[in-house]
Amino acid sequence: MSFTNRQLLLKTRPEGLVSRDNFELREQATPELQDGQALVRVLYLSMDPTNRVWMSDVPQYMPPVAIGEVMRGIGIGRVVASKARHYAVGDLVQGLVGWQDYALLDEGKTGYWAKLPPKPPVALPTLLGACGFSGITAHYGLTEIAPVQPGETLVVSAAAGSVGSIAGQIGKLRGARVVGIAGGAEKCRHLVDDLGFDAAVDYKADDFKQQLAAATPDGVHVNFENVGGAVMRAVLSRMVNGGRVALCGLIANYASGGKPSDDYSVIIVKRLTVRGFLAFDYKDQQGAVQDLVGWVVSGKIKAGETVADGLENAPVVLNRLFDGSHTGKLVLRVSGEE
Amino acid sequence: MSFTNRQLLLKTRPEGLVSRDNFELREQATPELQDGQALVRVLYLSMDPTNRVWMSDVPQYMPPVAIGEVMRGIGIGRVVASKARHYAVGDLVQGLVGWQDYALLDEGKTGYWAKLPPKPPVALPTLLGACGFSGITAHYGLTEIAPVQPGETLVVSAAAGSVGSIAGQIGKLRGARVVGIAGGAEKCRHLVDDLGFDAAVDYKADDFKQQLAAATPDGVHVNFENVGGAVMRAVLSRMVNGGRVALCGLIANYASGGKPSDDYSVIIVKRLTVRGFLAFDYKDQQGAVQDLVGWVVSGKIKAGETVADGLENAPVVLNRLFDGSHTGKLVLRVSGEE
Repeated sequence: MSFTNRQLLLKTRPEGLVSRDNFELREQATPELQDGQALVRVLYLSMDPTNRVWMSDVPQYMPPVAIGEVMRGIGIGRVVASKARHYAVGDLVQGLVGWQDYALLDEGKTGYWAKLPPKPPVALPTLLGACGFSGITAHYGLTEIAPVQPGETLVVSAAAGSVGSIAGQIGKLRGARVVGIAGGAEKCRHLVDDLGFDAAVDYKADDFKQQLAAATPDGVHVNFENVGGAVMRAVLSRMVNGGRVALCGLIANYASGGKPSDDYSVIIVKRLTVRGFLAFDYKDQQGAVQDLVGWVVSGKIKAGETVADGLENAPVVLNRLFDGSHTGKLVLRVSGEE
Repeated sequence: MSFTNRQLLLKTRPEGLVSRDNFELREQATPELQDGQALVRVLYLSMDPTNRVWMSDVPQYMPPVAIGEVMRGIGIGRVVASKARHYAVGDLVQGLVGWQDYALLDEGKTGYWAKLPPKPPVALPTLLGACGFSGITAHYGLTEIAPVQPGETLVVSAAAGSVGSIAGQIGKLRGARVVGIAGGAEKCRHLVDDLGFDAAVDYKADDFKQQLAAATPDGVHVNFENVGGAVMRAVLSRMVNGGRVALCGLIANYASGGKPSDDYSVIIVKRLTVRGFLAFDYKDQQGAVQDLVGWVVSGKIKAGETVADGLENAPVVLNRLFDGSHTGKLVLRVSGEE
C-alpha cells in the first residue's frame, strides 16, 4: 500500500523570517517498507525556535538541515503500516517526523522515536507542549540548572510562550514570586489572570524598565531567559548579587537571520556555565595568600612585576594596563623610603 | 609633625585612555592626627583595571570616585605617625591608600586596612601582585569558581598580566594543560619558557584562531577570562560541551571609555552564574513528563496551545514564533485523522 507523501524540502536558507519560497513542496509516493521499518502518518508538528536555527548554516547542537533535505521537525503521528518488530499499526509515536505527511520510522536508526500510550492522558498537542519538550525544558531549567527557592523572585521572558508559560507556573508551584515578560496587554493579563503569575510586564511598553523595577522590588534571584537582547539586559540589571540565569533561548537572535547578534548563543549550544566573580567575596583570602606566599617562596610560582615610578605619573602609568606594555603586576613606586 | 602631601584628585572623567588632564595634583599639609588615626607614607600603589572602572560613572561594585575626590587605589605604606591603638610607627600596612603621598588611616572607618608582617616573606610589590589581590583572584577563580581538573585544558587570556600569569601557573600546579593568550611573540615566549605554560597564542597574529585551535586539540574545558570581546569569542568557540568560564575581567571593555560594550560585565559585577542548557541533556526526562502530566491532569498547571492547520503552511506558521501572534505552544495540525 502506498500513499502520496507531501514533503517540504529546504530549498534556500532564509534570511530573517521564513518564506514559502525557501521550501519546495514535493509530492511522491511513500516507499515500500523494508524489515524494521514502519510508516507513520504525521498528525501534529511542533513549531519550535530550533526549527529556525536548523535552517541556518551556523554552529549549533545538531547539523543544520541540508539544502534539498526534508525539513527536520518534531511531531506526533500514528503508525499506518509496519514491518517493524516493536511498532504495530495504530501505535501513536513521537519523534523527528519531519515536515511531511508520512514519516519512515526505522528501528535501526535514531529518530528520537518514542511510543506514546494508546490513550494519552492529555490531548496530543499538549504532549508536544506542556507535557513535551517545552515542559521538559521548563522543568529542567528550574530544577537542575537554576533551582528557584520559595520566596525568591523568578523572572521569565517570553512568558506567554510554550516554555515560558510552563516555567512560570512551575515557579509558582515551587513557591517563588513569579514575574513574566510578554508583549502586549492581553498576554500580560493572561499571565496574571489565567496562569497565576504574580505580575506581568509588557516589554513593548515605553516604561518597560520602570514596570520591571516596580514588579521586582526585591530584585531578581533567578532569570529563566528565553529572549536575549534588550529584554535580557533589562532583567540582568535587576538581578541580585549571586543571581542565577537559566539560559534557555535567545529568540531575539534567531529571528535576525538565525545569526546570533551577541555572544550568548554559544553558552546555550555548548551548555556552558559562566560565573562572574570578584575576589572580595572570597571567604578564604587568608588561606589563598598562605598558598601563594608558599608557592612564590618555594619557586613553584614565579611572581613578576613591572614597577614604574612617581605618584604624578599614576594616570598615564595606569594606561599601560591597556596598551600591553607591561608584564605581570603593574605597580607604581610612590616612595623609595621602604 | 606635618608633611607635604601630594594628592591626585579626579577632575574630569576620562573617555577611553586616561590623561594627566583628568587629574588635579594638589599639595597640602597632612592634617593633625586625631585619636584613632595614623599617618601612612605610601610606598607602592597597585595599578589595576578596576582603577579605570572607578573613574567612570557606570554601575559597578563600589561607587565611582566622585569628581574632586582623591583617586581611590590599593597600596602599601608605612606608618610614620600614630595616635591609633593598633598601629605603631614603623608598621607596614596595606589598604585603600589612594593616589597620594600620605594616607590617613582611621581605625574607626573601613579602608580595607590590613597590617603586614614586619619582615614580609616576599618583596612589597609582590604583596600587591602574586601574593595580593591578583593572586587571590587567580586562586579563587580556579578553586571555587571553575575548578580545573588534572588533564583538562585551561585557557587563560591576558595571560602575561598580573592575574593571568598566576592563574596559568596555578593551572599547571593543578595538573591542567595550560594555554595562554597574550599580545606579541615576546610575551608568548615568556609564558612558555619562563612560566611553564604548555602553549601560548598571540592574539595579535593574523592566524590567531588557527593557532588557538592547534593549541587546544581536545577543546577547552575551563576558560579563565580576563579580556572579553573577540578574544573571548574565539575561546568560547573552542570550548567543549559543558565547559566552564571563570569570568574575571573584561579589559577589552574598560579601555573603551569604561563603558561596557557587551552584556557580560553585569555577570561579573553581580557575580552571576549563567548556565546554558538543552533539554536533550536532561537525565530525568521521564520523571519530568510524569510530573508535568500529573500537574496538567490535576489542573495545577494550565497547558495552552495555538493550533494552526496545513502542512503547506509550516514555513509561515513558524514565523508566528517571532511575531508574537500566538500564546502557549505553537502546533501545526498536519492531519485531522487523529
